Amino acid sequence: MHLDKLRHEVLEANLELIRRGLVVYTFGNASGISREDGLVVIKPSGVPFDELTPENMVVTDLDGRVVEGNLRPSSDLDTHVLLYKSLPDIGGVVHTHSRYATAWAQSGREIPCFGTTHADYYHGCVPVTESLSDEEIGGEYELNTGHAIVRRLSAIDPATAPGILVRSHGPFAWGKTAPKAAQNAVLLEEIAAIAYHTVVLNPHATAIPQALHDRHFLRKHGKNATYGQG
Amino acid sequence: MHLDKLRHEVLEANLELIRRGLVVYTFGNASGISREDGLVVIKPSGVPFDELTPENMVVTDLDGRVVEGNLRPSSDLDTHVLLYKSLPDIGGVVHTHSRYATAWAQSGREIPCFGTTHADYYHGCVPVTESLSDEEIGGEYELNTGHAIVRRLSAIDPATAPGILVRSHGPFAWGKTAPKAAQNAVLLEEIAAIAYHTVVLNPHATAIPQALHDRHFLRKHGKNATYGQG
Amino acid sequence: MHLDKLRHEVLEANLELIRRGLVVYTFGNASGISREDGLVVIKPSGVPFDELTPENMVVTDLDGRVVEGNLRPSSDLDTHVLLYKSLPDIGGVVHTHSRYATAWAQSGREIPCFGTTHADYYHGCVPVTESLSDEEIGGEYELNTGHAIVRRLSAIDPATAPGILVRSHGPFAWGKTAPKAAQNAVLLEEIAAIAYHTVVLNPHATAIPQALHDRHFLRKHGKNATYGQG
Amino acid sequence: MHLDKLRHEVLEANLELIRRGLVVYTFGNASGISREDGLVVIKPSGVPFDELTPENMVVTDLDGRVVEGNLRPSSDLDTHVLLYKSLPDIGGVVHTHSRYATAWAQSGREIPCFGTTHADYYHGCVPVTESLSDEEIGGEYELNTGHAIVRRLSAIDPATAPGILVRSHGPFAWGKTAPKAAQNAVLLEEIAAIAYHTVVLNPHATAIPQALHDRHFLRKHGKNATYGQG
Repeated sequence: MHLDKLRHEVLEANLELIRRGLVVYTFGNASGISREDGLVVIKPSGVPFDELTPENMVVTDLDGRVVEGNLRPSSDLDTHVLLYKSLPDIGGVVHTHSRYATAWAQSGREIPCFGTTHADYYHGCVPVTESLSDEEIGGEYELNTGHAIVRRLSAIDPATAPGILVRSHGPFAWGKTAPKAAQNAVLLEEIAAIAYHTVVLNPHATAIPQALHDRHFLRKHGKNATYGQG
Repeated sequence: MHLDKLRHEVLEANLELIRRGLVVYTFGNASGISREDGLVVIKPSGVPFDELTPENMVVTDLDGRVVEGNLRPSSDLDTHVLLYKSLPDIGGVVHTHSRYATAWAQSGREIPCFGTTHADYYHGCVPVTESLSDEEIGGEYELNTGHAIVRRLSAIDPATAPGILVRSHGPFAWGKTAPKAAQNAVLLEEIAAIAYHTVVLNPHATAIPQALHDRHFLRKHGKNATYGQG
Repeated sequence: MHLDKLRHEVLEANLELIRRGLVVYTFGNASGISREDGLVVIKPSGVPFDELTPENMVVTDLDGRVVEGNLRPSSDLDTHVLLYKSLPDIGGVVHTHSRYATAWAQSGREIPCFGTTHADYYHGCVPVTESLSDEEIGGEYELNTGHAIVRRLSAIDPATAPGILVRSHGPFAWGKTAPKAAQNAVLLEEIAAIAYHTVVLNPHATAIPQALHDRHFLRKHGKNATYGQG
Repeated sequence: MHLDKLRHEVLEANLELIRRGLVVYTFGNASGISREDGLVVIKPSGVPFDELTPENMVVTDLDGRVVEGNLRPSSDLDTHVLLYKSLPDIGGVVHTHSRYATAWAQSGREIPCFGTTHADYYHGCVPVTESLSDEEIGGEYELNTGHAIVRRLSAIDPATAPGILVRSHGPFAWGKTAPKAAQNAVLLEEIAAIAYHTVVLNPHATAIPQALHDRHFLRKHGKNATYGQG
């Protein structure tokens, strides 16, 4: 993808997080990748969302070295880059501290599939990563966060789980493009919110039957999908 | 009703869901029926709400065949059509995944009438459908969802219950017109939200006395209603 | 007060309820009284808030008879009128179904004074009325709702409790003027919301010490008040 | 700092509280100090936020005497002034009754560090003050509130805890400037909200490991910070 278009998409993804109330101040970041160029475009670190422009997005290579821009990239860059290297089909990554998804991440509980809203997007629970060891935290922390995500995804197709909860931290989401990743972050927050209220109403709620889960997921995904305009 | 007017009403009903915060992205749909023409107007599938126009609404017959429009109808069309066939007095149907109503649907709990806000609109609890069997899910799923709603309504006059919770799924609401159905979806979310906070404050809360329930419901409904401008 | 000014104040009070998110559609009403004229101005029944004007407010006498206007008054008129007759110092009354206050009303729990936000406005708990008997409900229901409020206030100075929860129903608030009553409805919702979250965090939370309660209440009320611009 | 600039900053801090939904009506106040002049600029008491201007901010000396302005200063002035005297590195103070932070204050529970959102700003829990004695409440109450805060901070570097919960009352936050203090009040509300939902999901949730807490806090604070644009 042309880098200029990617800058606009990454900006748009960052702005979507603000519009949907997922981030306050600088709590969150979105990035996108140009696979043909091997370049990542990411939000600069600590810059308020209302000062973001296509031009001040930071461009890095897949070793995380800045190749364009005068600003430092998001401090979570290494996590993003590792996800791009490990998940070859994704084109965008988003990290937020949105309220409900972060509360689930802090509680250490994965989100069971309690209903069709969830089943429309995840073909299973919303997974939670394992804790990092003190050595992983003291070492290349952001990179190791990426490794924890990839380990948790080892038996999961990322196309069937467009997001994850990093334990004690918050959600990451991904998609074919940066705007799709932002949309998946919004959907994860909504799924997390509904699930929160579900377990308060019924602490013994269980996941929906597999047949219903399959039906909804496959209505929207895969070669037999019937949802949308095809 | 003239089809052109119906297109506008159905659009308006869909937009009301957005304005009131009941849907994110494409999570929801509203339809309306022209009884004299035997035609249903419904939101196209997966089209963002800000791209909806009267013209891109989809028109189908009562077998669910598209008779006007180039877009696919909402994937929930068959549920809507069955409701129109089974409930001859309704003119509009709405489906959402609004947060509190969906949490109740996911919890599998019907909503008791805890107060007059509820009693003003429902002459009984907000009902929950039974689970579908694996065969029903694997077969004509959307049609069978409609059948589950109609079965649950077998002993209930739909004029006294303008909505229902589909178990593990979310709310459906109906009304004389599509905008009325949308309004009933908003009211159901509000009733669900207040009831949620009620059971947190008092897990042993019970339904209000029948005399109070009757008084409020009949103040707004039926031939002796005194509410509004008559 | 000149009736024309009162119409504007009552309209403004009704609009404040919308702006602050206390009512959806037609769920709520505000009124004001001209003591010298013995006339009450109140919202018409069931008219959407965005269609309200000073001119379509309804004017009634203290027997609840319409003396100006072509619309029916709010169905809660009789409750308002009884409050004006029983509480000679108030000039405005507001009724809403705001979420948190209504949840407390539905739970049947009075709101203890858990903190200074509450103590700034109520010199005691937020009271809850007793249930009405079936006879009271079947008879002059709205009038009897007023009597239940007045009975519950029998040992309370309404200047020290600017609102109440009608059991199984929702909040009423009052004040020197209609806009003050609307403000008190907003404050009651805020107090109810904070108290809700308090009891979830600490089910054994108790009322604050009397010295702190007195200090805050008397800082804002009475002849030794020091808050505001005097 | 030039007093004129300080007036604008304090106004801006007060307005930020409104924009972020932290205060209703006059529930909150922000101030700033000019250390070189020994003067404090603070919101006037009980004036609606939409009537605030740089000119009607009140200027006092460090004994709390008004030196400029015709309006009374915020009733919490004495608390602000004591904090400025006791915490020499702060330049702004904010007090609110924001919902979640106030609920924690009312519950009497300190907020454990459940995740990185919290660890980014507090190098420990969010502390809660001890109760005031009846003598402290009956005496110079606002001053004694300040003393309770300072006592609780005796073993804490205020640069590692930019806010506190005053028991039975609500949050205070501070920062290098008034706008920074307002930002810290917003962050405290967000931390309190996420923590609230965390303990509902997992009543046995515990603080994150110290290594993770250190990593996040020190990534944003101190001489080795790597976050932001340096």
